[in-house]
Amino acid sequence: MKIGWIGTGIMGGPMAGYLQAAGHELVVHTRTKSRAAGLLAKGAVWCEAPSEVAARCEVLFSIVGYPADVRSTYLGREGVLLGAPSCHTIVDMTTSQPSLAKEIAERAGQLHIAALDAPVSGGDVGAREGTLAIMVGGDSEAFERIRWLLERMGGTISLMGPAGAGQHTKMCNQILVAGTMIGVCESLLYAARQGMDQNAIIGVIGSGAARSFLINNLGPRIAAGDYAPGFVVDHFVKDMGIALQEAEAAKLSLPGLALVRQLYVALQAQGGGGCGTQGLFLALDKLNGIG
Amino acid sequence: MKIGWIGTGIMGGPMAGYLQAAGHELVVHTRTKSRAAGLLAKGAVWCEAPSEVAARCEVLFSIVGYPADVRSTYLGREGVLLGAPSCHTIVDMTTSQPSLAKEIAERAGQLHIAALDAPVSGGDVGAREGTLAIMVGGDSEAFERIRWLLERMGGTISLMGPAGAGQHTKMCNQILVAGTMIGVCESLLYAARQGMDQNAIIGVIGSGAARSFLINNLGPRIAAGDYAPGFVVDHFVKDMGIALQEAEAAKLSLPGLALVRQLYVALQAQGGGGCGTQGLFLALDKLNGIG
Repeated sequence: MKIGWIGTGIMGGPMAGYLQAAGHELVVHTRTKSRAAGLLAKGAVWCEAPSEVAARCEVLFSIVGYPADVRSTYLGREGVLLGAPSCHTIVDMTTSQPSLAKEIAERAGQLHIAALDAPVSGGDVGAREGTLAIMVGGDSEAFERIRWLLERMGGTISLMGPAGAGQHTKMCNQILVAGTMIGVCESLLYAARQGMDQNAIIGVIGSGAARSFLINNLGPRIAAGDYAPGFVVDHFVKDMGIALQEAEAAKLSLPGLALVRQLYVALQAQGGGGCGTQGLFLALDKLNGIG
Repeated sequence: MKIGWIGTGIMGGPMAGYLQAAGHELVVHTRTKSRAAGLLAKGAVWCEAPSEVAARCEVLFSIVGYPADVRSTYLGREGVLLGAPSCHTIVDMTTSQPSLAKEIAERAGQLHIAALDAPVSGGDVGAREGTLAIMVGGDSEAFERIRWLLERMGGTISLMGPAGAGQHTKMCNQILVAGTMIGVCESLLYAARQGMDQNAIIGVIGSGAARSFLINNLGPRIAAGDYAPGFVVDHFVKDMGIALQEAEAAKLSLPGLALVRQLYVALQAQGGGGCGTQGLFLALDKLNGIG
């Protein structure tokens, strides 16, 4: 099948690679052409603009950076929906605004194109290993039509509801991560300040009712002073911002999420935007006079 | 062995029962005598005061309500350490102040009595099933001397450091629970307000990087409108208060914990002090105009 792919960064590169490896013809565009070099070397065709990709494929995928990038990719002057698209299905896998996903689906529907929002979780490791969780919103027939392609990239594929439902599910995930991370970091900061051994604490609280993937996976990194990403703070701040915006638009106050996001913004102010999410520990440490 | 037991409530009752079932002679005291009826019927000896228990046993355990109860049990006019104690080891299993545990250990030391702080996690189910996690602070020789008794009541027994270290570990656990619960409840509230199916959301986010015991165990109860305790809000508010006090005494600001505790206090104000910890969902719902 002729597949369009827009955005070949740390996530999109390996994801597109799985489709290419399965024998599909790729037409690609990305902001910085050099980041598509691996795919191009293996026969992918380069396009100068999203509209050109859309005119040369049957199914189009995108995974770009911010909601503004999604908007220009689909609705901009050289965007997917403003040229002469030949694709019958478009799938945006960026973590982006549910409301924008709905807007794109409406505009696409007017052109008889099915639109799915399909953000992922599992990070760059999941992308490289093809084990991503993919949360999909949109029409169920369109979903069934391209499900086999998603299965090349991910381990768990879930249709969650109509347009925007994939993004809403991802927001639920990020809200849960935010709360869990403040618990992880405040708990381990308390432990350190009380002179306790953080790894011994993780061993106990990480096996009881407070256990989570994050305490057991990121806790030991905090104990080791390892703040390399996994998932980058700058992206997490973006995601939490989307969740707060969507919540506010629905007249929903989420005080925990708002506080955690502010602390991550402080971490950015301290130069930690490139840290992994466990860097929240550093922001709390600095808040308390150290570092 | 002749064992003293003070506090035979929902936790202490079954815990003492395990020692009695193992063939130990029990001498017991509790605030409301009727709550010791089961143990007395099986041969436990009733004492009118903690000091009397302490004068008639070799090892003494307690699990009472609040730090003030621990203080009066050990240091009050008819307390364990103010009579003529015959016990060589005392073990307070109440979740209480680390600083009070240290104070009791010092006073006990002057009488050549070893003191351990040994709070538990696992709730009333863990107490009934003998599967509690027990976090111990105090002298390692004293710990090794009575470890076999703790093993009758718990599944995981960990010596965490000197006096107070058991309590500090429990505080770390509760801080982590607090953060995780705000994540669980805000995530599921967002889901509900966006018209998503909460159980479907739990199925997805409860199996990825945001997974935790609490989302997978308490999430479905929230989805079912089941706010019966597990672990009661009134006790959790107490525990978080102790953690904040101890943190403040160490000049440590924990903004996430402080916010979560205030929301649980609001839940108490709304009449939800007897709910399980998942009741935080109700407080957030009411904050947002419903309920």
